Amino acid sequence: MAEETPRRRGRSGGGASRRAERTAVKIETAKYIERNIPNFEVLSEEALVVIETNAETVLAEIGVNFVDNPAALQRWRDAGAEVEGERVRIPRGLAKKLIATAPSEFTQHARNPEKSVVIGGKNLVCAPVYGPPFVRDVEGGRRYATIADFEKFVKLAYMSKWLHHSGGTVCEPTDIPVNKRHLDMLLAHMTLSDKPFMGSVTDPSRARDSVEMCEILFGKEFVQNNTVMTSLININSPMTFDDVMMGALEVYAKNNQACIISPFIVGGAMAPVSVAGTLTQVLAEVMAGIAYSQLIRPGAPVIFGAFVSSIDMNSGAPTFGTPEASLVTYGAGQLARRLGLPFRSSGSFCGSKLPDAQAAYETANSLNMGLMSGVNFMLHSCGWLEGGLVASFEKFVMDADQLGTLHGLAKGVPMEEEDQAMDAIREVGPGGHYLGCAHTQANFKTAFWKSEVFDYKPFETWDEEGARDTTALASDRVAHLIANYKAPSMDPEIYAALVAYVADKKATMSDAFA
Amino acid sequence: MAEETPRRRGRSGGGASRRAERTAVKIETAKYIERNIPNFEVLSEEALVVIETNAETVLAEIGVNFVDNPAALQRWRDAGAEVEGERVRIPRGLAKKLIATAPSEFTQHARNPEKSVVIGGKNLVCAPVYGPPFVRDVEGGRRYATIADFEKFVKLAYMSKWLHHSGGTVCEPTDIPVNKRHLDMLLAHMTLSDKPFMGSVTDPSRARDSVEMCEILFGKEFVQNNTVMTSLININSPMTFDDVMMGALEVYAKNNQACIISPFIVGGAMAPVSVAGTLTQVLAEVMAGIAYSQLIRPGAPVIFGAFVSSIDMNSGAPTFGTPEASLVTYGAGQLARRLGLPFRSSGSFCGSKLPDAQAAYETANSLNMGLMSGVNFMLHSCGWLEGGLVASFEKFVMDADQLGTLHGLAKGVPMEEEDQAMDAIREVGPGGHYLGCAHTQANFKTAFWKSEVFDYKPFETWDEEGARDTTALASDRVAHLIANYKAPSMDPEIYAALVAYVADKKATMSDAFA
Repeated sequence: MAEETPRRRGRSGGGASRRAERTAVKIETAKYIERNIPNFEVLSEEALVVIETNAETVLAEIGVNFVDNPAALQRWRDAGAEVEGERVRIPRGLAKKLIATAPSEFTQHARNPEKSVVIGGKNLVCAPVYGPPFVRDVEGGRRYATIADFEKFVKLAYMSKWLHHSGGTVCEPTDIPVNKRHLDMLLAHMTLSDKPFMGSVTDPSRARDSVEMCEILFGKEFVQNNTVMTSLININSPMTFDDVMMGALEVYAKNNQACIISPFIVGGAMAPVSVAGTLTQVLAEVMAGIAYSQLIRPGAPVIFGAFVSSIDMNSGAPTFGTPEASLVTYGAGQLARRLGLPFRSSGSFCGSKLPDAQAAYETANSLNMGLMSGVNFMLHSCGWLEGGLVASFEKFVMDADQLGTLHGLAKGVPMEEEDQAMDAIREVGPGGHYLGCAHTQANFKTAFWKSEVFDYKPFETWDEEGARDTTALASDRVAHLIANYKAPSMDPEIYAALVAYVADKKATMSDAFA
Repeated sequence: MAEETPRRRGRSGGGASRRAERTAVKIETAKYIERNIPNFEVLSEEALVVIETNAETVLAEIGVNFVDNPAALQRWRDAGAEVEGERVRIPRGLAKKLIATAPSEFTQHARNPEKSVVIGGKNLVCAPVYGPPFVRDVEGGRRYATIADFEKFVKLAYMSKWLHHSGGTVCEPTDIPVNKRHLDMLLAHMTLSDKPFMGSVTDPSRARDSVEMCEILFGKEFVQNNTVMTSLININSPMTFDDVMMGALEVYAKNNQACIISPFIVGGAMAPVSVAGTLTQVLAEVMAGIAYSQLIRPGAPVIFGAFVSSIDMNSGAPTFGTPEASLVTYGAGQLARRLGLPFRSSGSFCGSKLPDAQAAYETANSLNMGLMSGVNFMLHSCGWLEGGLVASFEKFVMDADQLGTLHGLAKGVPMEEEDQAMDAIREVGPGGHYLGCAHTQANFKTAFWKSEVFDYKPFETWDEEGARDTTALASDRVAHLIANYKAPSMDPEIYAALVAYVADKKATMSDAFA
């Protein structure tokens, strides 16, 4: 796969190169969003205090389980928690005190310094879908994901203007043994893209491999002094921290690499059916997880995560884009900011099996909520389908396009004299029109966000061209982007070293598929 | 058409009636939304003052045109404006002074008092799409709308839980002569539904007919003392008030009936390409229009309207669900509240030709923005397609379903002890699950909003059932609702009087089709 990458660039000179320049699509990456609009807040000060007090009660009286992890239990004991079996009860105030050393924002470096991102504050960084075992597209339908699919998604993410991050397990490459997948996935992120990426969390040894590959890519010293990965540590809600995830967290925190500490909640199953109850549990879980990260290494960068869906009580299916999930997310954003922590939530969430209207309603609800709730790191910001079981190629480019609307909204309302446009109103006057006026001529190119996927043609033209729906238009865009993909340049020695690392590592392993 | 209405009810007795009860879908109408969440505000106090000052400058120095309306010019002259030809220049402060008599909220009565709505304050009233000459559905494709289509939409609106209002010209019944359409449309709203509705604005005489029909429906005295219609008065932006719309406004305001005074703006064509410039013009236009309504009758109920779309500068097509339109709407909501006026904006806006993903993204963006911007009256809240050229049956029920998410979000976060769910968290503990716990059992039925259209089934079931997309599911719902429609009961004498009024009125007219 990635063999083609730096070599192709190396090979292409002279006429071929010039032809490529002429036909290439412009590859542009927008800067991460810096909000010039307020956050939307649904909880009063009084409500926030109730939830915070209740979360401390959960930690102190009910406690959390650290499973199969004696070292973690010892760390908690040493820190002053009460440990009974695997149950850790954290006295009031202790978690908050430990959390205080976590930074309120941090830079995740990309190999292309222009694409490094600052996570926290008023910023929003968008990363693609994470985790689906299946992919879907118009041509092939729904099928198990392969490494070829994975690489195609990494290329699409690289080509997507409004995506700031290459993500992690964009889909599960099920044709690669489980114990080797992380190597191929990291190699793809590192070579096919120059955007920041995530590390492996499925085993502490794979986290260590991720760090080692970053040392090759960025240099050992750079990795020791800088954050180059943001990885996803899920909590098994309710209130259970398993040894695999905690093992990966321990590796990353020790190496000063960032982790999202994220409860994974289907409301009514893994948390109470009420918004306030869910927020209480989420807060308690995140506080315990982040406090633990700071026990490993005070100052390790972390993100307050909240993955929340609701449930259809008839089918038991998780449901997305629902008001209750939005209310939890708005509230969680407030709680994260009060702890001074970056916040992760939202995404292109939907339950639909197809990239159809259901998928788009649910996704748009969730993306808007993500912007407004103050999310700093939006995992799953494009490509999610069927409750996260499927990564959709068409939906990937539809959603990535919609992320442009978040960039536009976040700008707020500029109020310079040119923006006030009084000269234009005078020039045009009652009954006129603005299409030709000087102000419009000077500003129309940047005035309005414009979709690269949607149809804006007159009905008759659209009809003559085949009356295509959004999925068909998106399918075209996928093909167009992939056809025009050119890998970012890379030092051939680094490339060779990465390839060698992966080959050597694989040679020491037998294949595991479970 | 409506002949079947009260009689069918009259006829059905005994066994037939009981059978009907068993198979009927439950007809439930939610109360209009009373927000328990804040409004989202994008303009600072400083920005608001700049825009207000600029709008006063527009009124005082540029002015607005009242076309073919000498009486209006005289009213303005008498009120202290400077009139030159058809241009009315309104001295600083005068419009604001006149606006002060407009109520900040008002009740629009429905013939079923349970369905009366209070427009203003923290409330949101949802009304269906208005104006499309075409309809579309899966069976018939895109075609000119007829009165049969119109009646079908009125029935769907009546059956839709989250719709509070029957609307006005839900589609244009193009098979009825232009000069008679309003009579059939009003008769349909009055007899096939018991929700509040809108009056005709296409000619002052039709506004008078609307008032007269309401006098039959509600009683003459009731109409004189109460608002029973909210009608749509568009301003021809930029800054032009035509005699037809103003003539209708004059009729309604005189009769204490409500009007939405609404600039109709495609940004970059009818207003400047900048958000601040558009807001300035919108404010000036609405201030002039509402001030004029108060010249007609101080205290007449009015709504600050803002219909804003952006434009695709390539095709000239209006675009929807875009960030710039959202920013204008958020800002307009702030400006309306500062004037103490109810606010109308947003809707199920989209440019797509089909009820596909594009339609849903654009619509969801717009609906969310409507809730968050403090809209009090949401016209076009369901059914809008293809930039408003088409009313879609499938999209009508999809959008009407999505309005449920707005109801859920607006509830905010209840914080009673039961909501805090501490007993549930204690009962379940680390590693457990909430599906069976007492708190879940007591609350699951009302805990989560649930779509009546979307698919929540497991993939395999969905696939076996034909792998249908949202449009197909919505088509089923349309058929189901229409099959189960039962007209609301009505006094047969009133019904007969309305039918007679329409017949008599039509008998005095020749057919006009333009």
